[in-house]
Amino acid sequence: MGNIITLTTDFGLADAYVAAMKGVILGINPEARLVDISHEVRPQDIARGAFILSTAYEFFPRRTVHLVVVDPGVGTERRAVILRTPAADFVAPDNGVLSYILRGYVAGSAAGNKQKLDVSEIEVIDITNRHFWRPTVSPTFHGRDILAPVAAHLSQGVPPAEFGEAIDTLTVLPSSVPRREADGSISGCIVYVDNFGNLITNIQRNDLPRKYSDISVRVKKAVIKGLNDTYGTGDGLMTLIGSSEYLEIALRDGSAAAYLEAGVGDEVRIKATG
Amino acid sequence: MGNIITLTTDFGLADAYVAAMKGVILGINPEARLVDISHEVRPQDIARGAFILSTAYEFFPRRTVHLVVVDPGVGTERRAVILRTPAADFVAPDNGVLSYILRGYVAGSAAGNKQKLDVSEIEVIDITNRHFWRPTVSPTFHGRDILAPVAAHLSQGVPPAEFGEAIDTLTVLPSSVPRREADGSISGCIVYVDNFGNLITNIQRNDLPRKYSDISVRVKKAVIKGLNDTYGTGDGLMTLIGSSEYLEIALRDGSAAAYLEAGVGDEVRIKATG
Amino acid sequence: MGNIITLTTDFGLADAYVAAMKGVILGINPEARLVDISHEVRPQDIARGAFILSTAYEFFPRRTVHLVVVDPGVGTERRAVILRTPAADFVAPDNGVLSYILRGYVAGSAAGNKQKLDVSEIEVIDITNRHFWRPTVSPTFHGRDILAPVAAHLSQGVPPAEFGEAIDTLTVLPSSVPRREADGSISGCIVYVDNFGNLITNIQRNDLPRKYSDISVRVKKAVIKGLNDTYGTGDGLMTLIGSSEYLEIALRDGSAAAYLEAGVGDEVRIKATG
Repeated sequence: MGNIITLTTDFGLADAYVAAMKGVILGINPEARLVDISHEVRPQDIARGAFILSTAYEFFPRRTVHLVVVDPGVGTERRAVILRTPAADFVAPDNGVLSYILRGYVAGSAAGNKQKLDVSEIEVIDITNRHFWRPTVSPTFHGRDILAPVAAHLSQGVPPAEFGEAIDTLTVLPSSVPRREADGSISGCIVYVDNFGNLITNIQRNDLPRKYSDISVRVKKAVIKGLNDTYGTGDGLMTLIGSSEYLEIALRDGSAAAYLEAGVGDEVRIKATG
Repeated sequence: MGNIITLTTDFGLADAYVAAMKGVILGINPEARLVDISHEVRPQDIARGAFILSTAYEFFPRRTVHLVVVDPGVGTERRAVILRTPAADFVAPDNGVLSYILRGYVAGSAAGNKQKLDVSEIEVIDITNRHFWRPTVSPTFHGRDILAPVAAHLSQGVPPAEFGEAIDTLTVLPSSVPRREADGSISGCIVYVDNFGNLITNIQRNDLPRKYSDISVRVKKAVIKGLNDTYGTGDGLMTLIGSSEYLEIALRDGSAAAYLEAGVGDEVRIKATG
Repeated sequence: MGNIITLTTDFGLADAYVAAMKGVILGINPEARLVDISHEVRPQDIARGAFILSTAYEFFPRRTVHLVVVDPGVGTERRAVILRTPAADFVAPDNGVLSYILRGYVAGSAAGNKQKLDVSEIEVIDITNRHFWRPTVSPTFHGRDILAPVAAHLSQGVPPAEFGEAIDTLTVLPSSVPRREADGSISGCIVYVDNFGNLITNIQRNDLPRKYSDISVRVKKAVIKGLNDTYGTGDGLMTLIGSSEYLEIALRDGSAAAYLEAGVGDEVRIKATG
């Protein structure tokens, strides 16, 4: 029960950093089942790590522990946290990498990118109890010496409250949510380019007008009308709701990213045309 | 028993698509043992996916389930199938990605690339029973919503016939089999270039004349005589039977692919010289 | 107990070679827990494979079996060996890939790069007993046909002595140990560049003068004074003891490798300045 631990990092697969974390986890919980989500998050790219995690976590069984180590601030005063939602547990630095998981729990803005959370359904813990850490903590590798052992103990049923104090604010990236403009259009951006060159936006199905045939999507110099069902039936440039429920721009038998010279951060604007 | 599920895809390891499939599998069969064969099949390169699978599957224990998702036709009318052989089970789109597994079971050509199969020893099922799928099927990700759950249930012992109707034709790629020419020579092609730059052909040991010292191999402008035993004992350009029983062209301490400017699809011609 | 087997190779993840080894292992020990250390060792780069292994193995539980296949001499007369230390077991070709593990056990030089070992605490076996190999051994893939099955049987508790004769010499790479020069300075070199561009040396914390603030580190044209605690608190170019206890040169928010145009093999010289 709950023995699955996933790993998402920006360590790449050439170095042994990921393996060191797995060794630490298996030393604590020999029954842990380790599943890699991705280790090819671009180094220190918190926004990308946040998005990748958001497209995978909901397909895992309940009470899976998701360990996320995209941590450019390691060794500084940034907090390390546990987030327990009704679906799963997350262990991560508090730097915005949990932004997409927090959609629906934000109660208001605190200071800077910090958001006040509605903690009636979720539990948030500032990890401070050294009892669950490795005895020696390298200032450059909290992933191995703090986060990995915490995830391992959590997967064995240790309650979150034992790892530190409950808190009710966390960092949320502004880019994780689209804006509704005064003229009724939706302004979002590309947050991810996948292996096939599909451009994935931060706009979800729920954000769109009900009648899909009546929308137009502008990205770079292209304007695309309507929504397709699948890559295989479209022709040329198309938009569709991808498998993770986000609006995507794709090119039949090709890379939309290369064709449009578009990438992460580029604006995507949606208008109702009906 | 039979709890091993291997995964072969063209998804790459940067995105979370592979992890989503693993999450789905573990939600159905918590005991499944997941082993990656490769996720770096070039996007939509069915021939390469077929070859990679063929070099790995026979080293797994009997009744391993091999899940293959190289699926450019996802969302169109291409079939998804289960193939049960005496050795193992395969779950894949019907697009040729099982070509090498089918060697020995082809009974004659049906239409186009479709081949009629001798189903006395194998079982082939057209996957149509939605009972085993995820409740919502994304038209762009049958790997996660149809093939992964089917593989998971199959690994738990559900009989193939429960997933759909028995069929007796499947797609086989013409490039998966070498030709014997009128003058007695064998005409094959390079089907794979490995990480070391070795050129691997579709010609197997059984296809060669018995007396290896008496053959000459022509590829691009080079003609190579005889067969070597191992990379370490050769000198310059050499041919040998690789570890997967296919004829390879290799370069001592270097990349034959770079040296010969050769790659997938280039012709390889073998003559008996004795 | 002791069912964990790690894998370190130069096979890359595109080809199916790693998967074939895993299939062989699971066919012998269905309970084996397989953990990848790295498969992106540069092809045939023994020194790099040796270093990567050294940064991961000590974080795994006792009696883990570490299988290492960086093996340019495959098929020639190089030996394949088992090394049992108090902490773990290693199965590898005898080509220097175990150099860092052997620090502390070298009793004197034998011939060439061969070193005589103090075998009072360790056990070294020349793998010669074909009983534990696959029935057919490909001359190009001992990893799959000899080393993988040996690792699998070892993980099931077969004593090392059953796999062959005890020996007391092994190959050790000269580059794995820094030199103390006549003027008291330490002369080491860069042995690894990680995913973030950090330059990792073969100089460990124990090799340094006690008072870190009084050292200067010269690499290429840069001279860096003192030691930092962490990447996050430094400014510009800095040195620190990395998470694997080796001296590293890093650049705040950037790649030290790119900035200094430095890489593996470049000299690093340390002087006491106090």
